[in-house]
Amino acid sequence: MNADTPRREDLQLGREIVGRINELAAISEDPARLTRLFLTAEHRAAAELILDWMRQAGMSAHMDPIGNVRGRYEGERDGLPALMLGSHYDTVVDAGKWDGPLGLITAISGVADLHRRGLKLPFAIEVVGFADEEGVRFASTLLGSRAVAGTFDESVLSVRDRAGISLREAVKAFGLDPGQIAKAARVRGDLLGYLELHIEQGPVLEQENLPVGVVTAIAGATRLAARLTGMAGHAGTVPMQLRRDALAGAAECIHVIEELCRADASGLVGTVGYIHASPGATNVIPGEAAFTIDMRAPSDIHRERAVTGIVHRIEEIASRRQLGLQIDVTHENRTAPCAPWLRAQIAEAIAAEGFRAFDLPSGAGHDGMAMIDVADVGMIFVRCRGGVSHHPDEHVELADADAGARVLLRLVENFRPQTGAQ
Amino acid sequence: MNADTPRREDLQLGREIVGRINELAAISEDPARLTRLFLTAEHRAAAELILDWMRQAGMSAHMDPIGNVRGRYEGERDGLPALMLGSHYDTVVDAGKWDGPLGLITAISGVADLHRRGLKLPFAIEVVGFADEEGVRFASTLLGSRAVAGTFDESVLSVRDRAGISLREAVKAFGLDPGQIAKAARVRGDLLGYLELHIEQGPVLEQENLPVGVVTAIAGATRLAARLTGMAGHAGTVPMQLRRDALAGAAECIHVIEELCRADASGLVGTVGYIHASPGATNVIPGEAAFTIDMRAPSDIHRERAVTGIVHRIEEIASRRQLGLQIDVTHENRTAPCAPWLRAQIAEAIAAEGFRAFDLPSGAGHDGMAMIDVADVGMIFVRCRGGVSHHPDEHVELADADAGARVLLRLVENFRPQTGAQ
Repeated sequence: MNADTPRREDLQLGREIVGRINELAAISEDPARLTRLFLTAEHRAAAELILDWMRQAGMSAHMDPIGNVRGRYEGERDGLPALMLGSHYDTVVDAGKWDGPLGLITAISGVADLHRRGLKLPFAIEVVGFADEEGVRFASTLLGSRAVAGTFDESVLSVRDRAGISLREAVKAFGLDPGQIAKAARVRGDLLGYLELHIEQGPVLEQENLPVGVVTAIAGATRLAARLTGMAGHAGTVPMQLRRDALAGAAECIHVIEELCRADASGLVGTVGYIHASPGATNVIPGEAAFTIDMRAPSDIHRERAVTGIVHRIEEIASRRQLGLQIDVTHENRTAPCAPWLRAQIAEAIAAEGFRAFDLPSGAGHDGMAMIDVADVGMIFVRCRGGVSHHPDEHVELADADAGARVLLRLVENFRPQTGAQ
Repeated sequence: MNADTPRREDLQLGREIVGRINELAAISEDPARLTRLFLTAEHRAAAELILDWMRQAGMSAHMDPIGNVRGRYEGERDGLPALMLGSHYDTVVDAGKWDGPLGLITAISGVADLHRRGLKLPFAIEVVGFADEEGVRFASTLLGSRAVAGTFDESVLSVRDRAGISLREAVKAFGLDPGQIAKAARVRGDLLGYLELHIEQGPVLEQENLPVGVVTAIAGATRLAARLTGMAGHAGTVPMQLRRDALAGAAECIHVIEELCRADASGLVGTVGYIHASPGATNVIPGEAAFTIDMRAPSDIHRERAVTGIVHRIEEIASRRQLGLQIDVTHENRTAPCAPWLRAQIAEAIAAEGFRAFDLPSGAGHDGMAMIDVADVGMIFVRCRGGVSHHPDEHVELADADAGARVLLRLVENFRPQTGAQ
């Protein structure tokens, strides 16, 4: 097939993708800081632009009842099972422009390339832009992909945002019907697999000097909330030996978490991202310190063992310092392993494009964590500068965007469904 | 003299004092949390009550131009130089009821006791209730005592509170004339000394099993603001070895401050009371961490040496972790030594009341830090339960309040001015 098709210009896919990345990034609630949240006017404007792109690429396209954009490019005949490609188009606050949109836009550009060439495949392609992966507005993440996977939890409709608006009210105000969300779901038999291209959001590919990589698994995460309680006191009058300083205790915990993770060779990471000391005055010994812990590892068993170890060490610190301790798991995601047969086809496409096929886990969560309930999942990572993400400095080189697109397109063109491969 | 006077009932002074402590504590902007700030309706109501008590004790009394309450009990003839007794009657937010009022009320009760006995001394007694020691409302502390010491800085009149009201506007709205503040000042020749009784606000007297103690010096303090800058990043995707985590760096600094102070045997204390990590999300490596450091020691040279050492260690931590560092001194108070001749008379009075005269430094700041510019300073500490202060649990036993009052009264009755003693 490839030999017969007209040659693309050098970087043609990459140029189209980067142009669209910039066009989409202009849709923001704050012109100075890219912010595009779920069920807002910016969500609406972005969806309309993406639906246009889908239609130009030869897809039928619509918005589904949770606000995802859905495009379908039929195969050699209508109604065939579909290979699903996608990523999300919501952002964090003050975001980078590549996290999510790169995968969605690359998928659309790939289909557009097939369409330009008049190429139909022995399966359909569906492209999905998920409306809420980041979970900034409501407490729960992956709302878009959960709806597609059929695991959307109706109780989430009662969750309220900071302005007091429930998800149910927001869906209605957006012009959608919360009663129809279940209709966004697909069943496993309709899908041949789910493939997502995404920026790495980490520095590993840059270190390896590679534009793309094969994701082995989306690492599970455990989040904990810890609260140490000591005794507040005057900073000038309580001798060091008589103090029960909750913040000094928290500092020791942070130090221990860092040490344990640094000593681990298998990719364990631990982060304390939030801390609050009360009462929080310069001249008062903190009587209370609250902090969060985020633990991730490439396997569930490894992560769980690390969490147990860290909780044990924190208990020990609290006890030695005579501090009260409350520690709770606030969030737990199991590891989502990528399907070996999809990994193999991704590695093949990468090699065929002339790059070394390099395996790495995803430390960040992705829509694949939800999609694994309805389809086998494969992921391609694209290098991003310095590993920076969730920040305006997030950046992908044109050549890397193009490399990612070529890999995805080759993968799709050469795709063999699992049944055929077995 | 003492032999001729009628015997007081057991705990009579203490009972009167505790009653008045409770009466004054009822004047609060929030009935549930004792809060009495400078130049508020509660300040006004408290001042009126205290002026009443002063007049009942045989003093002439008025409010001065900064809002201090001033009472004068003439000596054997009018216009003699005065021994000044005092403390403050403003509070922190959600305060205890003893910090400040105990010393002021004890002084008034002592004068009332002299007055009941018709006793005139060979000097006048002035009692002052300082209107702003805590410095909660405006950026600057000790505004009341600085006015009396003649060191009130007029530029402070432009400082604004959180509501945007300047000190100048607040003084006027309170019905006072900012142009008259200089008239609150006394000159050194008019004052024989300044004596203050105050709760310890620390646990040392409780440990020593003593109701009262002799303060050696009001420790100086240095406050620093530190800011570490690293690189924010995704909590799942940046391997530990590639992180520049500002909060992990701050945690190491806190640990080092605690260790250095713990290892010091001479009363050095260091406190990190405030910390803020940015962006402050569970799943983001902190790119910035700001914290405060409060360092105190019983001598200036000792404190300065410790501050230098800690800054050096923090610089080392920042450098090793490739973190940017900004560290500034935000506040510095020199040590205010109590006058040896006053310390000796206090020790004598304590011994005469049957207690061991025990010396201890004050880690907390007091109005004496300002008054030292216009008079020699002496201080008596009274034990408070658990060393707790700046907290609703602050507590003084009736017997200790009574012991403090008896010591202060004996000290005043037996007082020999320095010239007479030399």
